[in-house]
Amino acid sequence: MSELRQDPTTKAWVILAPERAKRPQRDTKKKRDDELPDWDESCPFCPGNEDRTPEEVFRLPVLEQASAWEVRVVPNRFAALTPEGSLMRREDGHFFRRMDGFGIHEVIIETPSHNTPMALMSYEQVEKVLIAYQERYNDLKVNKQLKFITIFKNQGWASGTSLVHSHSQLVATPIMAPYYHQKFDVAHDYYADRARCLYCDLLAEELENGERIIAETEQLVVFQPYASHVPYETWIVPKAHCASFGLYPTARLTELARVLKDTLLCLHRELDNPAFNYMIDTSTTEYEEDPYYHWHIRIVPRVTLVAGFEMGSGIYINTALPEQTASRMRECAASLNLYSSSGS
Amino acid sequence: MSELRQDPTTKAWVILAPERAKRPQRDTKKKRDDELPDWDESCPFCPGNEDRTPEEVFRLPVLEQASAWEVRVVPNRFAALTPEGSLMRREDGHFFRRMDGFGIHEVIIETPSHNTPMALMSYEQVEKVLIAYQERYNDLKVNKQLKFITIFKNQGWASGTSLVHSHSQLVATPIMAPYYHQKFDVAHDYYADRARCLYCDLLAEELENGERIIAETEQLVVFQPYASHVPYETWIVPKAHCASFGLYPTARLTELARVLKDTLLCLHRELDNPAFNYMIDTSTTEYEEDPYYHWHIRIVPRVTLVAGFEMGSGIYINTALPEQTASRMRECAASLNLYSSSGS
Repeated sequence: MSELRQDPTTKAWVILAPERAKRPQRDTKKKRDDELPDWDESCPFCPGNEDRTPEEVFRLPVLEQASAWEVRVVPNRFAALTPEGSLMRREDGHFFRRMDGFGIHEVIIETPSHNTPMALMSYEQVEKVLIAYQERYNDLKVNKQLKFITIFKNQGWASGTSLVHSHSQLVATPIMAPYYHQKFDVAHDYYADRARCLYCDLLAEELENGERIIAETEQLVVFQPYASHVPYETWIVPKAHCASFGLYPTARLTELARVLKDTLLCLHRELDNPAFNYMIDTSTTEYEEDPYYHWHIRIVPRVTLVAGFEMGSGIYINTALPEQTASRMRECAASLNLYSSSGS
Repeated sequence: MSELRQDPTTKAWVILAPERAKRPQRDTKKKRDDELPDWDESCPFCPGNEDRTPEEVFRLPVLEQASAWEVRVVPNRFAALTPEGSLMRREDGHFFRRMDGFGIHEVIIETPSHNTPMALMSYEQVEKVLIAYQERYNDLKVNKQLKFITIFKNQGWASGTSLVHSHSQLVATPIMAPYYHQKFDVAHDYYADRARCLYCDLLAEELENGERIIAETEQLVVFQPYASHVPYETWIVPKAHCASFGLYPTARLTELARVLKDTLLCLHRELDNPAFNYMIDTSTTEYEEDPYYHWHIRIVPRVTLVAGFEMGSGIYINTALPEQTASRMRECAASLNLYSSSGS
């Protein structure tokens, strides 16, 4: 079992998970998705190899278990956290605090196809992935011991993934995520002054300005933030106020899937199939209806490396202006006729 | 000129520096230091190419300008911040704040040798590098517009460096570094309760426990922290309380050089010449004598990649236990007879 330890100098928690050192290493010979076969017998996520993953906790289509699956969710075989152990915080000497590595770590296998990245999937397939995210989120949030659920995707070797077959992950932790905490505090202060949601107002300002907008659809806005941390950082934000991804109306996942896929396709074209991460920034499971926070998707291409200055200061250096990269993304979207069927 | 922009959702500042996109890219053909020549005519840091860097602001030996240099400090040719512009924060629409990219960005060229990493330098050479750090730090801190000075080193491609010739960097910013701010707040709270320095007490606890200690010398302790964020994260902490690297007695740089070089040599052997960053975590220039903070060197090997979970939650997953890796480092140090001449 892993353990959670608190850094006494920052109060941040770290997951110590030696078992994860055994997970598969990237095969450096297979660098590009376009050199991959559609099926790989050595891949644990490919159809026919279902016995090489732990037993699935969710699948689509749900009603026809006998038929071929389209999306599967399974516990991570090299889980950073596991659903055993105690939530007690224990003192370790006078100074240190730790707790058992209690939590949930799942993998969402997004497609049976070994070589199809999300940017090249059908809209329908991406929607199924989003449905799986939300189903698992809402299933797990019932457990009150799980305070925070992070859904994220690592695509391409530079993103930190160890398997090429398109997948996402979900980690539910018994502690509040410090990144969320920081954003919540800022949004809470803003609300205290104005009784308005920071993100709702930010969207209005971005739309009025227009320079950093990539697309506006009926339900969503895609833009590159004013203080983007890295080149081509891109956010997808719902127009309607909603703190939690778990409460986002399921009927709206159709449009979200179109917008997410189109945005990833633009990045795929613009940056030549870049490695990237995306994260669903959402509220805690306890305060899903709060007026302060506003869930969104944050896409971070891994085209540059964080170095000593960022690690020492916490200040990022970004070598691209979001106004310029958003303009290129708009041109790319126009040339591919993207975002069009969703309105705008 | 670059600009500083504030992220309205986190209040963190980001440096937008499009000029830095033009800096040299890594030459992927030259991957390993042991395949490099001692002198490279295309390297701007090699002797004979001094005209390819901006004019030097410091050098060693200082008294004999005519002789060959051993360490040079020059402004960064692709500086993230430059010493022009205003410190005024300007509103950009209703929502955004920015300021000119005012600051200092220097490069410390650590050796005339193109292919000698710090782990393989002489103790005397490393001491000269540390003297250069401190001279520049103390020279720049006189400028009260510069609130924080970050000294750091990127070694190896995975660390984010673009040049292989051994060098460090210094960035002085007109804003407080958020990473320091977080550590300061925790240390300040600790002091408020106990009237003692968190780091002094932490060192005592680590020494009593012993499991994570790599070496103890007369003036310094080398250990891997309880909640290490990545495998083999290693700290070098002075035993005597001192908030600022700028005020650390110059006479003690001799021992610090021995300990730094020996620690890097251990990591070089243990991890086969890994990419790494080190950062000098120090106080603000204004509060160098404060009783709360305690400067130290943090060495972070880049043997794993940060992925979506860390980026979404702020929680790190470390696949190695510091007790186990510290034990390996102790064995390595014993086999090479390191740290011995400094006492222990």
